[in-house]
Amino acid sequence: MSDGGGLFGEILARGRVREAVSDQAWLQAMLDVEAALARAQAAAGLIAAEHAEAIAAACRAEHYDIDDLGAQAAAVGNPAAPLVRALRAQVGDPAAGAVHRGATSQDVVDSAAMLVARRALEPLLDDLGAAADAAARLADDHRATVMAGRTLLQQAVPISFGLKAAGWLVGLDEAAARLEAVRSTRLAAQLGGAAGSLAALGDSGIEVLSRFARELELAEPVVPWHTARTRVAELSAALGEASGAAAKVAGDVVLLAQTEVGEVREGGEGGRGGSSAMPHKHNPVAAISALAGARQAPGLVANVLAAMEHEHERAAGAWHAEWAPLRGLLGATGSAAAWLRDCLEHLEVDAERMRENLDDVLLAERVAAAIGGSGAADVVRDALAAGRPLADVAREHLAEDEAARVLDPATSLGASDQLIDRALGAHAHRS
Amino acid sequence: MSDGGGLFGEILARGRVREAVSDQAWLQAMLDVEAALARAQAAAGLIAAEHAEAIAAACRAEHYDIDDLGAQAAAVGNPAAPLVRALRAQVGDPAAGAVHRGATSQDVVDSAAMLVARRALEPLLDDLGAAADAAARLADDHRATVMAGRTLLQQAVPISFGLKAAGWLVGLDEAAARLEAVRSTRLAAQLGGAAGSLAALGDSGIEVLSRFARELELAEPVVPWHTARTRVAELSAALGEASGAAAKVAGDVVLLAQTEVGEVREGGEGGRGGSSAMPHKHNPVAAISALAGARQAPGLVANVLAAMEHEHERAAGAWHAEWAPLRGLLGATGSAAAWLRDCLEHLEVDAERMRENLDDVLLAERVAAAIGGSGAADVVRDALAAGRPLADVAREHLAEDEAARVLDPATSLGASDQLIDRALGAHAHRS
Amino acid sequence: MSDGGGLFGEILARGRVREAVSDQAWLQAMLDVEAALARAQAAAGLIAAEHAEAIAAACRAEHYDIDDLGAQAAAVGNPAAPLVRALRAQVGDPAAGAVHRGATSQDVVDSAAMLVARRALEPLLDDLGAAADAAARLADDHRATVMAGRTLLQQAVPISFGLKAAGWLVGLDEAAARLEAVRSTRLAAQLGGAAGSLAALGDSGIEVLSRFARELELAEPVVPWHTARTRVAELSAALGEASGAAAKVAGDVVLLAQTEVGEVREGGEGGRGGSSAMPHKHNPVAAISALAGARQAPGLVANVLAAMEHEHERAAGAWHAEWAPLRGLLGATGSAAAWLRDCLEHLEVDAERMRENLDDVLLAERVAAAIGGSGAADVVRDALAAGRPLADVAREHLAEDEAARVLDPATSLGASDQLIDRALGAHAHRS
Amino acid sequence: MSDGGGLFGEILARGRVREAVSDQAWLQAMLDVEAALARAQAAAGLIAAEHAEAIAAACRAEHYDIDDLGAQAAAVGNPAAPLVRALRAQVGDPAAGAVHRGATSQDVVDSAAMLVARRALEPLLDDLGAAADAAARLADDHRATVMAGRTLLQQAVPISFGLKAAGWLVGLDEAAARLEAVRSTRLAAQLGGAAGSLAALGDSGIEVLSRFARELELAEPVVPWHTARTRVAELSAALGEASGAAAKVAGDVVLLAQTEVGEVREGGEGGRGGSSAMPHKHNPVAAISALAGARQAPGLVANVLAAMEHEHERAAGAWHAEWAPLRGLLGATGSAAAWLRDCLEHLEVDAERMRENLDDVLLAERVAAAIGGSGAADVVRDALAAGRPLADVAREHLAEDEAARVLDPATSLGASDQLIDRALGAHAHRS
Repeated sequence: MSDGGGLFGEILARGRVREAVSDQAWLQAMLDVEAALARAQAAAGLIAAEHAEAIAAACRAEHYDIDDLGAQAAAVGNPAAPLVRALRAQVGDPAAGAVHRGATSQDVVDSAAMLVARRALEPLLDDLGAAADAAARLADDHRATVMAGRTLLQQAVPISFGLKAAGWLVGLDEAAARLEAVRSTRLAAQLGGAAGSLAALGDSGIEVLSRFARELELAEPVVPWHTARTRVAELSAALGEASGAAAKVAGDVVLLAQTEVGEVREGGEGGRGGSSAMPHKHNPVAAISALAGARQAPGLVANVLAAMEHEHERAAGAWHAEWAPLRGLLGATGSAAAWLRDCLEHLEVDAERMRENLDDVLLAERVAAAIGGSGAADVVRDALAAGRPLADVAREHLAEDEAARVLDPATSLGASDQLIDRALGAHAHRS
Repeated sequence: MSDGGGLFGEILARGRVREAVSDQAWLQAMLDVEAALARAQAAAGLIAAEHAEAIAAACRAEHYDIDDLGAQAAAVGNPAAPLVRALRAQVGDPAAGAVHRGATSQDVVDSAAMLVARRALEPLLDDLGAAADAAARLADDHRATVMAGRTLLQQAVPISFGLKAAGWLVGLDEAAARLEAVRSTRLAAQLGGAAGSLAALGDSGIEVLSRFARELELAEPVVPWHTARTRVAELSAALGEASGAAAKVAGDVVLLAQTEVGEVREGGEGGRGGSSAMPHKHNPVAAISALAGARQAPGLVANVLAAMEHEHERAAGAWHAEWAPLRGLLGATGSAAAWLRDCLEHLEVDAERMRENLDDVLLAERVAAAIGGSGAADVVRDALAAGRPLADVAREHLAEDEAARVLDPATSLGASDQLIDRALGAHAHRS
Repeated sequence: MSDGGGLFGEILARGRVREAVSDQAWLQAMLDVEAALARAQAAAGLIAAEHAEAIAAACRAEHYDIDDLGAQAAAVGNPAAPLVRALRAQVGDPAAGAVHRGATSQDVVDSAAMLVARRALEPLLDDLGAAADAAARLADDHRATVMAGRTLLQQAVPISFGLKAAGWLVGLDEAAARLEAVRSTRLAAQLGGAAGSLAALGDSGIEVLSRFARELELAEPVVPWHTARTRVAELSAALGEASGAAAKVAGDVVLLAQTEVGEVREGGEGGRGGSSAMPHKHNPVAAISALAGARQAPGLVANVLAAMEHEHERAAGAWHAEWAPLRGLLGATGSAAAWLRDCLEHLEVDAERMRENLDDVLLAERVAAAIGGSGAADVVRDALAAGRPLADVAREHLAEDEAARVLDPATSLGASDQLIDRALGAHAHRS
Repeated sequence: MSDGGGLFGEILARGRVREAVSDQAWLQAMLDVEAALARAQAAAGLIAAEHAEAIAAACRAEHYDIDDLGAQAAAVGNPAAPLVRALRAQVGDPAAGAVHRGATSQDVVDSAAMLVARRALEPLLDDLGAAADAAARLADDHRATVMAGRTLLQQAVPISFGLKAAGWLVGLDEAAARLEAVRSTRLAAQLGGAAGSLAALGDSGIEVLSRFARELELAEPVVPWHTARTRVAELSAALGEASGAAAKVAGDVVLLAQTEVGEVREGGEGGRGGSSAMPHKHNPVAAISALAGARQAPGLVANVLAAMEHEHERAAGAWHAEWAPLRGLLGATGSAAAWLRDCLEHLEVDAERMRENLDDVLLAERVAAAIGGSGAADVVRDALAAGRPLADVAREHLAEDEAARVLDPATSLGASDQLIDRALGAHAHRS
């Protein structure tokens, strides 16, 4: 919950998204909510237009002291009540009476949370998109870069690095698409008043709700969602999914960068990943930091899901328990996206090493398939176990041409090119 | 993972969904995948049509011994490999050679998982929908049933029970809508072969993939998703969200059924919830069982999200770690939905008790609002603290008519009727 | 991760523990580690004593800029490396060469984490102990305060409030005992050098390790624990258990404070828990804030446990993923303990209301037991269902004296007094 | 929750522990509890001794139908109530009236859970101990086996494989020690009656509690722990810690077994880990299955911790929500231990490959340290970047003897031998 970078901040909550979830950002979002509420009520004729503008003018975060508000918040269990007091004081009479009319603290905090989320998703989706763009370039550039496909961390059959990158791309694009869907359809204004009936707004409740949502550019909910937390849960889960998609890619980079594999290397700003004590080392710091961020997600999502059990018209604890994990998820997933972008945009691929690492024995499956029949796998296995070169086995059971073809990994990439085209097409379609 | 009811089964994984995630169901789904694969290859001209039909005919779960397959599965780390062996033996030559061509174990297990999910979602969504229907009836029937709105478990302002039920309804409908969206767009066939390139299918890879997906009535993925686990994560998260939505309702029922509140009571089959030792007790067993199921979700979703980090072309552990939580989520969420349906369909509402429980002091906010001005709340608070009846305070500051109106809770429901209409409209629109 | 209170800080990370896990506290702990390392090496004759003292003198947090260190940390993935550079610059030649000799970044961060934990446990255990003291007073004071025992939130049989408080007491004491055990035996110094072999310390490795641990007043590990994370996991789990124990109590307070139950009320500082909009409300803010903190624990513990999978001699991500949840757990559990202390120390118990709420029907079980035989429960149940007063049923089947005894709840408290004595005895024994 | 192996059972819940947590085992444990209760009451003179023996004689699981009990359990929300009915019927009059006297369903289920845990911990600790023994042998045998120490998955400095195995050993031993401590001190009998006051046992409550605990060979709690769930939480957390310790080792094995590293290989039963389709592959199936089991733990522990919030004298849902994760944790951790034992007992270590993989450049840190001074690291880094062999750099700055010593990795193992001795000593001390 640090606003400044802090000791670990840049590693665990990189850059722009950290600011977007800062106390300053939350405070401004709460003030934006109060301004929108006043304008909506003025438009509905409930308060005077000049009072609404006086309120809106006072809704600038720099007028308020965060630590002071936080200290007062403890007495009531949320920061909205002291903010309303401070805002009324700032506005002064007579407009003060028009502040926060018909609303309750949860309306302010919930609507503000949605604003904070929408704003934090901007850099997050920007970084996730740029990481996907980088994966797309890698997919296209490395269609012919043959490498070992690895299952269970054992070399299995040859693939192209392009196909691997296409898999990364689709994973990132799917996660981004889900986040975008949540952003455009599930981030909604909350306004219900003391217990969700809009009772303090007289006959204008629905009208004010509609105008309020439009002011905030948030969706208008069917009913106030103060105790139906599906929106918060969907947002959190989508962040968790994006973290997972990023972690898959970052994990692959860490594995490919192992000293004994050496197929990729993080480039980027001079010196990053160097070890002063061990000059030979080059650590994939961006991928590691992406993993560190992404791995915050599972537990935080669990906390949000467990907190869906809101009692009656406002939860005694479950609501308050949402704030930290939601904020944490935005920060950590945003950080993972930023680090992954950095990682992929500067990834150095060693195609030669990929080819060298590829064990010829990986063609064994192809040879067995070419020989055909259910016993072929045993024939090949036994021959290899006996120390015979695979090429000999192939030539023994296959025509010369066929044997040569089967033994050339570049001819063994199957539908890889088509699959890469599909991934690139789907990616282009998103932009 | 029990197929039979078991000692706790009916409480924690009720009814139809338990069968839908049983070992038997998983086995049949894997066999359905093999049959679909054979038919897709026959249609693409890769194997003979009569071989495909011979394979399909052998794909009936009753031909195979689950415990035997499970024991063999341990040697390779998944149940597909022994099943393929057993299927080949069942099919016999020459069709045996056409079994499982070009596929890998993960193709079978992943596609089967999607089938199991689709099938388990049928009873689950049926029960969730019926629970929502019951909530809709409660919302409509109880528009005029005045009760205490409670925030932080304290009586706050009057609401109608109809509005509370409308909030339940929207929460359940949103969760169901998300699950339906996942079902129709995110459950996809998986076919990639040894490392995702469809290499063993020659030039027909994409065609077989398309036909295979159509045979299974699953979506066709852009690329094989063997290591991009967003689909599994989205499904799991949507289940977790549905569990959370169910838990909110069940939790409210438990609270309303408290001895001291007594506003609702679970009806249902004779004797349920009675206590042999304590004849006076009537426990809300269905709501409690719904909670027990729903509370499995947060940790299981966390496990699925943490398992998204699949290494390279097949994960060494993360894939295997998905099976139990996915199954657990389907079973537990399905159980929660079934119990909640039972609970709401038989819920007995005591409108009289609701009115009795409503503390007149709940009208204090209305009185303060009617008096108006920023000091009104203090005036009312001080008067109440001094032991004066609220009615006196109201009449002192307001005209007689206005005082009477303000003090009648039925006039204090704000936009409740409109909100109920919106919720019912959205619900009708779904059906 | 905020150092100042921040907008939500006081609610979610109250008071002293927030400072104890601040960036400032982490920085000082890392510096304390460097000072201890220098002194240990001086004592072992590896560096000059005056160099060690020069280093120690420079190890004051106020000399360093946290945000600056954090920004540099991002380039290497941890804050120790830039701190070592800054410390060397601060120390100047020739002592600079004696800084951080033979150690690696993980040694500094891990040992500092243990120091931070030990220091944060001071206020945390103080607050937890004070909460237990308050529970002990309630247990002793309310031995004779009869109330309804409630199972499944239904009134079941009479108990005393003293017994309920004794249950709280034991839960809190057990959690504190576990945390104390972890503090005294499992918080250990970490020193291993680049890969855990202490290779850069020549023959003095073990000696330096011992002296270093003693300097820090941390346990000396059998071997360096850089990749065996049981210590971090045990600490985290013990914090999670303490959060759960606190949540049980806070949850009971929230339920007892319900408007319809009204058996307890939070006292405390003037005005806390009042609602400006709803003058009649008195919210149990301290209990709610305790719940909000405690509910952070489950997901954070899950994250720490998932991060135990450290690869080889230093993890690529799992290590970095520990920092935020460990810090979060200390802060959130510490906050829960502080709020619970506040709640229990000012808890107002309404013994009269407890007796009033007690439904006479709760004696049904006693009556059935006194009647005896397996059919007695049915007899009583049927009589109550037929609307007969329990007293009549009792007198019909029992002697007058016996009936009177059975119907007096104060005689139905069983072993409550003895159990309270046991709880108080165990508590006294701890102090 | 399967009793038979099932389709995935052997992979995810291997062998003996699966039986120990089966429905059959739970049923027997509940019956053992009823038998112990009867005997305790007979000893206290509350029921006739021959009735107690008649009850005990009827307490054999084979007399009862699990699915039938489970179906009835749904009506009351727990399996104890129908079991008591069935037991009474089995016992017949007059002893039937002595069955389950003064106890409540939760007493039976909670005490049975402790019995199940104690029994499941036997194979689990046996396997964990055997895995540790195997690690100890590897540590001792490979003191001189030089390999690359790897940090962040990059080769860092030389270590011995013995030191790595010693780190595994200590991690496993610590986890086992914690589980043993929980087993011997925290598994306690639960007996409280309807609401924890032992009221239905008259003056004999405490005596019966003591005798009951002794009968079951479980600890006697200070007070009934029906709503203080620290015991369940501590057990669960200790299982999670053991899973994490196992996962660390299994993860290292998977990484060392990578095709490109090839330093270890799983031996074991013929054919395990072979791939029929890819004859060259040898998958570390045991390590992978250990990971699959271990990774269930984090989410399940989170669920148990979240369920600590038991309301009043019996929770409405939280209690029921404990059963599945506790059982899951015992099964999954037990499976991980069994698979890890299998993995380590048959681990084939390729010492030659370890030496070959070791990049000479790993001695760079030693060379820099030998040169000394804060600039030495830069000197070495620049030389290597310029393509100069490390040996040349060493000889340029160091005396011949010193250069030779520094460049021999076997002399660079620091305190490894002493650390291995410490680990072996601690291990021997445990046995």
